Amino acid sequence: MSELVGPVEILLVEDNPFDAELTMRALKSHHLTNSIYWVTDGQEAIDFLFCQGRFANRPPHPVLKLVLLDIKLPKLDGTEVLKILKSHEETRFIPVVMLTSSTEEADLLESYNLGVNSYIVKPVEFEQFMKTVSDAGLYWTVVNRLPDGAPGNEGE
Amino acid sequence: MSELVGPVEILLVEDNPFDAELTMRALKSHHLTNSIYWVTDGQEAIDFLFCQGRFANRPPHPVLKLVLLDIKLPKLDGTEVLKILKSHEETRFIPVVMLTSSTEEADLLESYNLGVNSYIVKPVEFEQFMKTVSDAGLYWTVVNRLPDGAPGNEGE
Repeated sequence: MSELVGPVEILLVEDNPFDAELTMRALKSHHLTNSIYWVTDGQEAIDFLFCQGRFANRPPHPVLKLVLLDIKLPKLDGTEVLKILKSHEETRFIPVVMLTSSTEEADLLESYNLGVNSYIVKPVEFEQFMKTVSDAGLYWTVVNRLPDGAPGNEGE
Repeated sequence: MSELVGPVEILLVEDNPFDAELTMRALKSHHLTNSIYWVTDGQEAIDFLFCQGRFANRPPHPVLKLVLLDIKLPKLDGTEVLKILKSHEETRFIPVVMLTSSTEEADLLESYNLGVNSYIVKPVEFEQFMKTVSDAGLYWTVVNRLPDGAPGNEGE
């Protein structure tokens, strides 16, 4: 889990520290490091996103451009987190991308059915992993456009 | 409107021939040209996607990885096309990305409310336009993963 300093653009939900480290390193190539926050289970993700639990007093983060969400997670699965995010008006605008090693058809179908914005299978090979995550970070933080007035994004 | 030959990976819905030409040229940089199909209004898009009207007998295209959708369109607006796609089980898995010059808050909010996967504002400057469209093409055809068994994608 990373330290909470400054505004967060990307929330990374990943229980594997090795994968989390690699993901953050890949995103660093676009100088996004300071704006990534990493949590290790689904409940922490929900608490962060809804400013509850230990995040009840977190500083306001006007811009959240992406949630990178693993599927197999402690406490609350990624698909459960996705379902909650997409069923609440104040969070449904936030782009959610599954970043998972699962190629299981059931996970893909459920994710798309629940309204995931995109689904990425973690490449096994190192260089390919770095490139894929880096491309995704670039796409969602630079190419994609969010409503200025979307809940949670009013300050942009 | 382009000629229909071979399987289509990207459906481009764009009434401005100049923008369509530039978009297809940008996507060409990833050698995707032969798999792009261009239609010029919303009704043509629906007919293509649901194999109806003049597309009733179109060859099967197992893989459709992306719909690039303008908003202001003749006959049927982009948001209407989006609403239809996302409310039908056989088409809701297809990633839809708005590619529009509209930065109007109402268009952004409506698109996200209707379940758009991503929203891109066309850059005014030429080089930036080419790069943005090229990045988007790469992301949705290479990085993003679709269910093999999604309706319309069984053959992959």
